[in-house]
Amino acid sequence: MEDKTQLADFQAEVLPQLETHMGKHLATLNSAPKLQKAMSYSIEAGGKRIRPLMILLICQARGRVLDDDVLSVAGSLEFMHTYSLIHDDLPEMDNDDLRRGKPTNHKVFGQDIAVLAGDALLTEAIGWLAETNLAPELQVKLIKNLSQASGANGMVAGQTGDILGEQKTLTLTELMDVHRKKTGMLLEYACVAGGLLVNADEQQSENLRSFGQNFGLAFQIYDDILDVVSTTEKMGKKVHKDLAENKNTFPRLLGLDQAYEALNETLEQARKNLAQLAKTGFDVTLLAQLLGYFEAK
Amino acid sequence: MEDKTQLADFQAEVLPQLETHMGKHLATLNSAPKLQKAMSYSIEAGGKRIRPLMILLICQARGRVLDDDVLSVAGSLEFMHTYSLIHDDLPEMDNDDLRRGKPTNHKVFGQDIAVLAGDALLTEAIGWLAETNLAPELQVKLIKNLSQASGANGMVAGQTGDILGEQKTLTLTELMDVHRKKTGMLLEYACVAGGLLVNADEQQSENLRSFGQNFGLAFQIYDDILDVVSTTEKMGKKVHKDLAENKNTFPRLLGLDQAYEALNETLEQARKNLAQLAKTGFDVTLLAQLLGYFEAK
Repeated sequence: MEDKTQLADFQAEVLPQLETHMGKHLATLNSAPKLQKAMSYSIEAGGKRIRPLMILLICQARGRVLDDDVLSVAGSLEFMHTYSLIHDDLPEMDNDDLRRGKPTNHKVFGQDIAVLAGDALLTEAIGWLAETNLAPELQVKLIKNLSQASGANGMVAGQTGDILGEQKTLTLTELMDVHRKKTGMLLEYACVAGGLLVNADEQQSENLRSFGQNFGLAFQIYDDILDVVSTTEKMGKKVHKDLAENKNTFPRLLGLDQAYEALNETLEQARKNLAQLAKTGFDVTLLAQLLGYFEAK
Repeated sequence: MEDKTQLADFQAEVLPQLETHMGKHLATLNSAPKLQKAMSYSIEAGGKRIRPLMILLICQARGRVLDDDVLSVAGSLEFMHTYSLIHDDLPEMDNDDLRRGKPTNHKVFGQDIAVLAGDALLTEAIGWLAETNLAPELQVKLIKNLSQASGANGMVAGQTGDILGEQKTLTLTELMDVHRKKTGMLLEYACVAGGLLVNADEQQSENLRSFGQNFGLAFQIYDDILDVVSTTEKMGKKVHKDLAENKNTFPRLLGLDQAYEALNETLEQARKNLAQLAKTGFDVTLLAQLLGYFEAK
């Protein structure tokens, strides 16, 4: 069990900066008032900010100053993640009424505005990267990686697989592919982006990418487990929904005990990645504490 | 009345190249089969390809070779435009069953896949720019301009204004603002992108941008006029729909005669922009012929 005191302090220091930075950027967009409200609503609905936090933690692990450019890269990723939540919650998709303890975007603003708010956040997520003061070569690499992680063979393909998979039982390999695309690739991107921001060398980049993949897999197994063992109150969204909808999940395919075992094995791999990074000058203390996320609650 | 022979020849030569180039790029995306089919369906549904054509015409006007990078910038814009059509046609938006003479995307693939196909095309439109071999500085400029033209204060804001405007009568200024954002800014981007690809100087860039704005306005006035005077057969989509839905249009606000007059005045402005460009070394022959688009049909 990792001590999480320092991580909690770090979060308490940097996450408010991230919120302010995202709020400021939203304000500059100067969009149609209702659209602007709908975008802000979902950004301000909170959440754990795990993806941008990962970027900030990697920068911290190499002593890179968390300047406006770093905060923009982190905020851009949260915009991308938030768009995906808005669209996933739509009636024609997962049809969810509750997200992060609040009514979903389309419940408040209507289905048309929810589609548009998602479209706008997606566009601005990538556009924001082009507006940073980072070197153009770096901007292009970030944009290329983000669009690949979130596009036709990334997150969108994962959501497609998730929807189409509802009609049949997937194998473990198929389920892992869907999850890797739907959730994993954006977490992997967070680690790749962090690596780009700290000029990681090839070996470090490989370890960061692998850490992101393992973190993403652990994240999804854990999320599936929580849907079985947690309550709506704790989660801020409906639970036991996967079972009711006959969804493909790790507990359903493996049983709950085996799902916990898969989680622990994946976390072990992630710790090995961190050990490798520590050997090449990364201070991985807080990143290791982040793995404690999967044991809390 | 412009002679359009040379333009027709140019289109016959380059548009098939563009189609092939877009098809090849779609194939590289290697997405979930149903998603891939849905994306290809709307890209292959055709249309006039006015936006990418504009980029190709500007390159031609300065003698820039229409290499793979130019075709990618052109194709990227058509991806962006196509995503917007798929989402605009959704039941929660304009609820259209017919587009370019074929059933709309959600009619064929379902509403969930249509949302996702749009999301994927949007993401890949921008991502494609980051994958070209153009100089990184140029890639970043293109991405910045494209995301601004299509995002929260561009095309998405225009569609928002269009939807919300249905409930009230707009003033001419409000109508022009909605149209500029919904349709104009992407046509303006086409001219800006063309200018970037030919290294236009400041004055040339300004004239290209202004030409794009005038072209965009003419485009929308003409589209509104056609909805009054044309037939479903000719258009490949429903006509007289604006009137039935009490939409804000130029003919409704100005009357048909005045709408024609506004069209002609706008075209006159566009011709002045071309005359300026011609003075600084652009061969504007084909661009001038493109204005004939508004008198045909």
